[in-house]
Formats: sequence, C-alpha cells, structure tokens
Amino acid sequence: MNRATKLLRNTPSILSSSAIGGKKEGEGPLGDYFDKINEDAYMSTDTFEKGESQLQKQAVSHVLDKSGLQAENIDVMFGGDLLNQCVGTTFGIRDFGIPFLGIYGACSTMAEGLLLASLFVDGGYSQTAMAVTSSHFCTAERQYRFPLNYGGQRTPTSQWTATAGGALIVTERENPPFVRAVTIGKIVDLGVTDANNMGAAMAPAAYDTLSTFFKDTGKSPEDFDAIVTGDLGKVGSRILCELFERDNINIREKHKDCGMMIYDFDEQDVHAGGSGCGCAGSVLCGYFIPQLRSGSMKNILFAATGALMSPTVNQQGESIPGISHAVWISYDCCDKVPDIKFSKKG
Amino acid sequence: MNRATKLLRNTPSILSSSAIGGKKEGEGPLGDYFDKINEDAYMSTDTFEKGESQLQKQAVSHVLDKSGLQAENIDVMFGGDLLNQCVGTTFGIRDFGIPFLGIYGACSTMAEGLLLASLFVDGGYSQTAMAVTSSHFCTAERQYRFPLNYGGQRTPTSQWTATAGGALIVTERENPPFVRAVTIGKIVDLGVTDANNMGAAMAPAAYDTLSTFFKDTGKSPEDFDAIVTGDLGKVGSRILCELFERDNINIREKHKDCGMMIYDFDEQDVHAGGSGCGCAGSVLCGYFIPQLRSGSMKNILFAATGALMSPTVNQQGESIPGISHAVWISYDCCDKVPDIKFSKKG
Repeated sequence: MNRATKLLRNTPSILSSSAIGGKKEGEGPLGDYFDKINEDAYMSTDTFEKGESQLQKQAVSHVLDKSGLQAENIDVMFGGDLLNQCVGTTFGIRDFGIPFLGIYGACSTMAEGLLLASLFVDGGYSQTAMAVTSSHFCTAERQYRFPLNYGGQRTPTSQWTATAGGALIVTERENPPFVRAVTIGKIVDLGVTDANNMGAAMAPAAYDTLSTFFKDTGKSPEDFDAIVTGDLGKVGSRILCELFERDNINIREKHKDCGMMIYDFDEQDVHAGGSGCGCAGSVLCGYFIPQLRSGSMKNILFAATGALMSPTVNQQGESIPGISHAVWISYDCCDKVPDIKFSKKG
Repeated sequence: MNRATKLLRNTPSILSSSAIGGKKEGEGPLGDYFDKINEDAYMSTDTFEKGESQLQKQAVSHVLDKSGLQAENIDVMFGGDLLNQCVGTTFGIRDFGIPFLGIYGACSTMAEGLLLASLFVDGGYSQTAMAVTSSHFCTAERQYRFPLNYGGQRTPTSQWTATAGGALIVTERENPPFVRAVTIGKIVDLGVTDANNMGAAMAPAAYDTLSTFFKDTGKSPEDFDAIVTGDLGKVGSRILCELFERDNINIREKHKDCGMMIYDFDEQDVHAGGSGCGCAGSVLCGYFIPQLRSGSMKNILFAATGALMSPTVNQQGESIPGISHAVWISYDCCDKVPDIKFSKKG
C-alpha cells in the first residue's frame, strides 16, 4: 500500500449533502440539482465577501435540515474556501459552534474535506463529520484578477468562478453512498505562470493523484461510472486525457469535469468552463452524491483539483503549483476491505 | 466524552522537531533553542514571501536530518501559514513530494497540524506524519497592516510577528514525548475589531478550548508543568487568566505564552509580545518538545491560538473570530487510556 492511498476499514456513509448556487448556476444545465438558488449576488448582505459566507451558512443549514441533525450533533467540521484567510468559511460557519478544523486546498477543498471527514469517522474519532466549501465569482475576480468594475477582457483559457457552496455529512456506515478509499495528493508544479489558465496548472496534479490511486488500488477507469475532476475546464481536461494516453490509459469515456458540467458553453459565455471550490463542491453534493445514493451510479472517483496560486507570489514571478486529492465513493460497501499495510521504515 | 476531545488510543510519539528563526528571534531569550538562525530577512531570496518559504524549507530539512528520515519516509504532511493562499507553505514544501494536506488556522496552525498528524498516526492511517508552519514579520506587516516602508506607529497592544518556522514528525509510539489527547476548538467571536489587539480577540477561544479540555478529561492545571498558549501576548494572557479566575480556576502559575517567551520585553521593543504561526511553532518545537523528551518537563497542554482575521473583511466592519486547538503532550505514555465513547445520536 502506497503511503498516499488509504482504504477505509469501516467505509463510512455520506448521510446527506446540500448544494447552493447563484443565479448563473441556477440557469445552467445542473440548475435543478441545487437545493437553493440565490438570485442576488450579495445574498442580502452589503458586500460580496459577506455574500459568500451566506453560501456556506445556507449549505450547512440545508445539509443539517436534510439529515435531521442539529449543529450540536456534528462532531467536527472541515471547511475552507478561496478567499484570503478563508473568510468565506470563518464568517459563514462561526455561529454553528461546531468543532472546526480549517483547511486550505484552493479548489480541491471539497475533496480534502471529504477525505478528512471520512478518515475521522472511519477511525472512530467522530460519529459525524461535515465538510463545507464555497466560491463566489465576484469575490474571486477582485481578489485574484481584477475588480469587476474594471471590465477586464477575459482570455479564452480563463474560467468562470462558480458562485456556489456545498456541504456534506459523513457518518458511520449505514446507507449508500459509502467512502471506500482516498488518495492524498502531493504538490505538482510544472511551471505554468498564467493565472488565466489554471486548468493547465492543475491537470498534472490530477494526473499524478489519479495515477497513484490506480496504481495503489489496482483499479482502472473501467471500474468507475465517472472519474470526476473539479474544475480543469476545457484546457485542463484535454491535458489530463492526453497525459493518461501516454500511459495507454483511456479515461476519455469516463472523465467528467465539474467545470465543464455546471455551465452551458454555448449560452453562458464561460470561456474554458467553471471553477472555484464551490464548483466541484456543489456538483458533487448536488448531482453526484444523490445518484450514488439512489444507485443510478455505482462508483465514482472524485478528484477535485486546486491551483495553489497567489496574486502576490505570481507577480513575483512564481509559477502556479497544483494539488488534487481523490475520493472513491461507491453505492456498495465492501464488508471486507484489506487492512492498511505499510512497509516498515528505518 | 465530549465530541471535541479525543484521547489517543495509541499515544504516538513526537520523533523529532526543528525550530528556525530570524535575527531578532536569535537575539531573544530563546535564541539558543533554535536549530538555525537566519541573519538575512530575505533568506537569500529576492522577496520576503520567498524568504518565508525558506523558513519552512529549512524547518522540514532540519527535522528530516534530525530524525534520520528522508522525505519519502513521510506519509503525510500538514502545513499552513498566515499568508494569503498559504504560499509560505506551498512554495516552501513543494519540492519534497510528500502527500500534503493544507490547513488554515492562522496562528493556531502548529496545534492543528500536530493534532491532525497525531490522529493520522494514532488511527493507523500513517506511520509518519509531519506538521510544519512559519511566519515572517515583513510579510505579515505588509499583508495585514502596513508596508514596512510606511513606517507606521505601532500601538501598545500590537504584537510582533515572529520570523520563525517549526516542524515536527509524529510516529507510532516509541520514545517520549507522547501525544495523549487533543481538543478541537470551535470559532469564538466576542466582537473585537482591532487588528492591533489580537491577543484580546484570541483569549476567549483559548479559554473555551482549555475549559473544554479540562471538563472532558477531568484534568486540572495542577496536572501540567505548563499550559502553553500560542501568542496571546501581554493583553490576551491577562484576559485568559481572568476568564479562568471567574471559574475559580487559577492557571497563573502554570500559564506560559510563546508570545511572551520569544522576545525580551525590555530590550526588544515588541510591545505586547510576539505572534505568528512561527512563534508558537518554533517555541513548541525548539523549547518545549526537547524538554518533554528529556523528562525535565512531564506534561504540557499546548493550545496555540489563531485570529481568523482578514484585512478585507475587517475593513468591511467585521470582528476578528478566534480559534484554539489543544494538544496534551507527555513524557509518559499511558498504556491503557479509556477508549473513546460517544453518546449515540438521533
């Protein structure tokens, strides 16, 4: 067993999940899968940042409602977002009073949160663990690129940060879907410096993590209904498929990218596709998890990807490192998974 | 057992730790406890941000050297810092190729990282887990307050962000010190809005987490050689002691604050004391862990505190939420700790 991949001994359940969107997301092809659509970009607050916090607050409230649990029933929460100091999360969830561990994985946040929540339940440290994330077009543009008022021209490779949030609750094994295995990614940096081409920066990280998962578990793309990346968009998705082709692995038929699914390319003018923590977060929570619950999908490999970029360091000439974490979610639970074996080290 | 506190079943060991400092930290009372002191604030790079990354790189290199392990022997790494998008960490550790989970807890980062690393080893998910963090006076000032060139006047309650880094490696139980229990904090916000008085913003979070720990474990301050907070400084430390006094608990004799220890108040002009992820990180890794290894201290309760503040949201009128996580580190390992019991929930 590779050090990065962990087979879950107790295959915990994803009890419930919620997806919150903005106006544009509601008008997209997945509009019907959201629990709530906010027509107002401020979400009835006076700043976009406070609005983004509302996305998380709504996501947490909805997932609690849907699960029939109260905040005091949640043992631990993992959350993060794209904003400086992760304030979308801090101010969105502070009133719930849930023990909280902040995470930062850029757009890979939902995969990281689900991974950690699953291991906390699997290991018996928590009975219920929540993961939550969000992103907001207006906060991300002004923080990472230009204020909206500037009216900057968007490049063809640029992606549209989804105004969306997602939350889920992991509990001890009960009903499908189940978390079967996770792979922790490492930072991969092939030197992309274009902040308007994050798909290209993240694709090598997704390739690295997915390859590790396949190698460690002996699984192949055929074992999954879908291999779901977070927000590689058109450019990154093409690169990912090509990287696998070099290894004679065809993932084209199975590959889905949340950034390619959330908007209508013909109608919604999103250039290379959607992006943001909330993109992968809401598409996983709103679209995929319900299908895995009903059994209309049996297995997915969810590998959200993050571009660990910073405007400050980017302006200093640095490249954009990527990271991706993978989670195997299944309609079936395996009663007997092989125990984790490590080779003893010096 | 409260949901926030986890008694570790296998009481993992802290195998090794390293502390890196800047010039001012080297001149302070703990100067001799650092593994390396950087006289140059740029650490031989061309920007302060890249310099901060060097602190993490050095911390990781030193802790690997001291433990006799290679990067490929480390199963997982938890890291974060104060910079936007945690770039101190990303660019400091990207070349090591270690499976990485990014965390954000502001100045509580070392406690969060140690907590997660300990649970990963305790639960059998990793044989070796690393935690790393850093902070840098020059990057923090320009990001959170004013560029240094502006020459802003510092208020009496302001704290001096330590230019420092710390790293540690947790492994399966072997030699002291051992991690015995952890308490995951929740966000506590009593409405402090002064970005120059973070001690006051964080003290209520430390009080909340430490109270939870005492309640959940039945321990009291007398059971510890030291109750170590991260960087409450003069103002926050006074508030913390007063909050406990209301409960008729005296922590004054046992309370140590890394922010009060790292600098000489008379000689080093640091106003209310030190702060930053690297403050608690380096003082824990450089000063406390070696004492717990030798047995000159038997038990400490380490509760680093974080001010989850953001200049953007602060300017929008928001307050500064605090968080604190606690880790009980001991010279003694307990062969039989009570198993974790949760009350069953609806």
